[in-house]
Amino acid sequence: VRQSEPTPDVFAERNHAVTAMRVEIINTGTELLLGTTPNTHLPFIAQRLLRLGLRVARQTTVGDNRAEMTAAVKNALARADILLITGGLGPTADDFTREIIAEILQRKLVHDENLAQLIADRFKKRNIPMPETVLKQAKIPEGARILPNPNGTAVGLVLEHKGKLVALLPGPPRELAPMFDEFLLPILRAHCKNLRPFCRIFRTTGLPESLLEQKIQPLIQKFPQLEVGFCAKIGEVELRIVTENAKIADEAEKIVESLIGDFVFSRGDERLEEVIVRLLTEKKLTLAVAESCTGGHIANRITNISGASNVFLSGVVTYSNAEKVRLLGVSPQTIEKFGAVSEQVAREMAENLRKKSGATFALSTTGIAGPTGGTSEKPVGLVFIGLASPDGVEVRQHLFVYDRETFKFISAQTALDWLRRGLQR
Amino acid sequence: VRQSEPTPDVFAERNHAVTAMRVEIINTGTELLLGTTPNTHLPFIAQRLLRLGLRVARQTTVGDNRAEMTAAVKNALARADILLITGGLGPTADDFTREIIAEILQRKLVHDENLAQLIADRFKKRNIPMPETVLKQAKIPEGARILPNPNGTAVGLVLEHKGKLVALLPGPPRELAPMFDEFLLPILRAHCKNLRPFCRIFRTTGLPESLLEQKIQPLIQKFPQLEVGFCAKIGEVELRIVTENAKIADEAEKIVESLIGDFVFSRGDERLEEVIVRLLTEKKLTLAVAESCTGGHIANRITNISGASNVFLSGVVTYSNAEKVRLLGVSPQTIEKFGAVSEQVAREMAENLRKKSGATFALSTTGIAGPTGGTSEKPVGLVFIGLASPDGVEVRQHLFVYDRETFKFISAQTALDWLRRGLQR
Repeated sequence: VRQSEPTPDVFAERNHAVTAMRVEIINTGTELLLGTTPNTHLPFIAQRLLRLGLRVARQTTVGDNRAEMTAAVKNALARADILLITGGLGPTADDFTREIIAEILQRKLVHDENLAQLIADRFKKRNIPMPETVLKQAKIPEGARILPNPNGTAVGLVLEHKGKLVALLPGPPRELAPMFDEFLLPILRAHCKNLRPFCRIFRTTGLPESLLEQKIQPLIQKFPQLEVGFCAKIGEVELRIVTENAKIADEAEKIVESLIGDFVFSRGDERLEEVIVRLLTEKKLTLAVAESCTGGHIANRITNISGASNVFLSGVVTYSNAEKVRLLGVSPQTIEKFGAVSEQVAREMAENLRKKSGATFALSTTGIAGPTGGTSEKPVGLVFIGLASPDGVEVRQHLFVYDRETFKFISAQTALDWLRRGLQR
Repeated sequence: VRQSEPTPDVFAERNHAVTAMRVEIINTGTELLLGTTPNTHLPFIAQRLLRLGLRVARQTTVGDNRAEMTAAVKNALARADILLITGGLGPTADDFTREIIAEILQRKLVHDENLAQLIADRFKKRNIPMPETVLKQAKIPEGARILPNPNGTAVGLVLEHKGKLVALLPGPPRELAPMFDEFLLPILRAHCKNLRPFCRIFRTTGLPESLLEQKIQPLIQKFPQLEVGFCAKIGEVELRIVTENAKIADEAEKIVESLIGDFVFSRGDERLEEVIVRLLTEKKLTLAVAESCTGGHIANRITNISGASNVFLSGVVTYSNAEKVRLLGVSPQTIEKFGAVSEQVAREMAENLRKKSGATFALSTTGIAGPTGGTSEKPVGLVFIGLASPDGVEVRQHLFVYDRETFKFISAQTALDWLRRGLQR
């Protein structure tokens, strides 16, 4: 298995003890089975459910095919207590999840005039003529609860059937995710009200999973019954502790903080770049970035965050040496003497940008992303990261031997986390 | 659904007509159901199968749990002609796919001495002591064909059972992918020797799916039996035509080119930013980008491509007005008179960066990414894109009403595609 849990068998048993509810997911969409679209719903939903103490027992993907979908829904419904179905709620001919569910659960499909009005308004607002077919989306199985969709015309639906909960969610991730969090989660929470797991999430960066596991051994020794899970992603390891005992949860949390607190950048959904924009905003400080090898990746992540414009002044992506001189005032002699990928150039990039932009902090990166361009002295994966602050400028050297995009991500992650630690000090 | 097929039922039937073989995939691994690891096997395998004319009819994910896995395998085997199972071939206690398959297919698990030797050699070569448990991997169901694993100790296995083909593949993607291509594909090809489909892919941007569908109506009318599929992603619609007739494939391809050729940026895996780096490289031209609302997204995508350093000089992310003046020489009067989000500022950004950087082309973006910052005159989603070239500078205005990250992506996509068309002219 790719993930490592400290004691997989105990873990699996405890799983059943905690969650009496069996959850299944059916993802519909021919594009998933053609391989053109990866299934991002399963990881998203599974991680959300985990925090409620719910685990997915089985997941099925079927195409936009009535017979397949009907069979898969019937099979899953025979086994599951909670069934989540994604996709097939759109207006086109291959969207028929609503109809299939109505048929299987023996409900009439009824026209909902409020919903029709909402859909019509959406088109009016955008000044687009509304095709008649769209009104199909206003038909809902009798007795279904509606989950509003702020980002599209397809609402979600929740039905109860013989004590089972069936939820239909739209296929596009940017419609599903906010609907799930805002409207479905409270319903699931109420439905599983006997489950009161206390889940604490610690998102860390800067330590590999194995070292993190070593560091939290005292916690595992103190609470051998505590569920402790690790999830290693690129440039991040998430630590999860789950227990049904509130006091143990609080105490375990304090122990985790004392053992690995410095490495924890977030306690939930907040991304590293969000933490930085929030901290800069709270402290009324500003940032500028001078990127060579990360090529705009840092600026892009920072500007993904709403509110970035208040704290982010500018980014400069200087791929050519000439532009390092022109835009950042790096000395041509420094480049010639030490090379563009050097501690000295990283230092000048950060220092000069901080001065010129007037930002409180300036980050810089220069390195060899690869796959070509490495030498024995300066191999692919080498990167110098600079941080200029009111306290002066410092440069750190790292070696991240990965493919090009992963290299950029980890270099950026390291730079951003360095800044975060400075801001949280 | 995210993808729409013009005539889904016909499509589904034709699908069965083309591929007499029903393929199912079972992905095993608790990490997939915990949401910690995305399922990359399904897209990889599905795309490989498509080229053989094989489609996946259903995909199931189960955890490392004997009862679940046994049930899922039995279910799938009752329906499928070809069953591919990934994961659970490792040496640890939660790896038991081999045993379950042996039991279901009523084969003995036999020790394979050659295999044991290969595994032992692998450890010897790496100078690691071999745990006894690893030899579990030398036990194979009687009559199984072995798929060598150049990247690990877990070999793949292929069994035939009542005319059905069952293949077991290792979980780690870097072990599965080469094994699939080198050893399983030839077996599948031989197993399905009657299928010879011709598949053509056209990746487009700039037209919504519905308009694209309209535009290719003449093709559908000319070849009503042709399989025509659409896959709409954010900022991109992929058109796929499949036929068993080589002449029809060639003729259809020409018709598609004549109908929507301008909108096609790629015919396969090549991404839009790759096309641009390739075209700039071929023509020995260079690019610089001045980004406001896209915030480094364009630079980031361009620099994801190996070889970008030869054609990409610099990017400037000017979030503050002061930095637009300092780094790009935009006139403060222009900003004051027309606002930072204006045709005039986009023009000066592109024009000035092109002059100062010496690049052949300069792209600029200024807009309102939202969710805040919109006014009735300049709403969220408004963007001005500038393109400065040896022919002069032009600015186009768009309105992309989406969430912040999608807005950035589509603005960047539009800018890059404008440049692509210029480069392909």
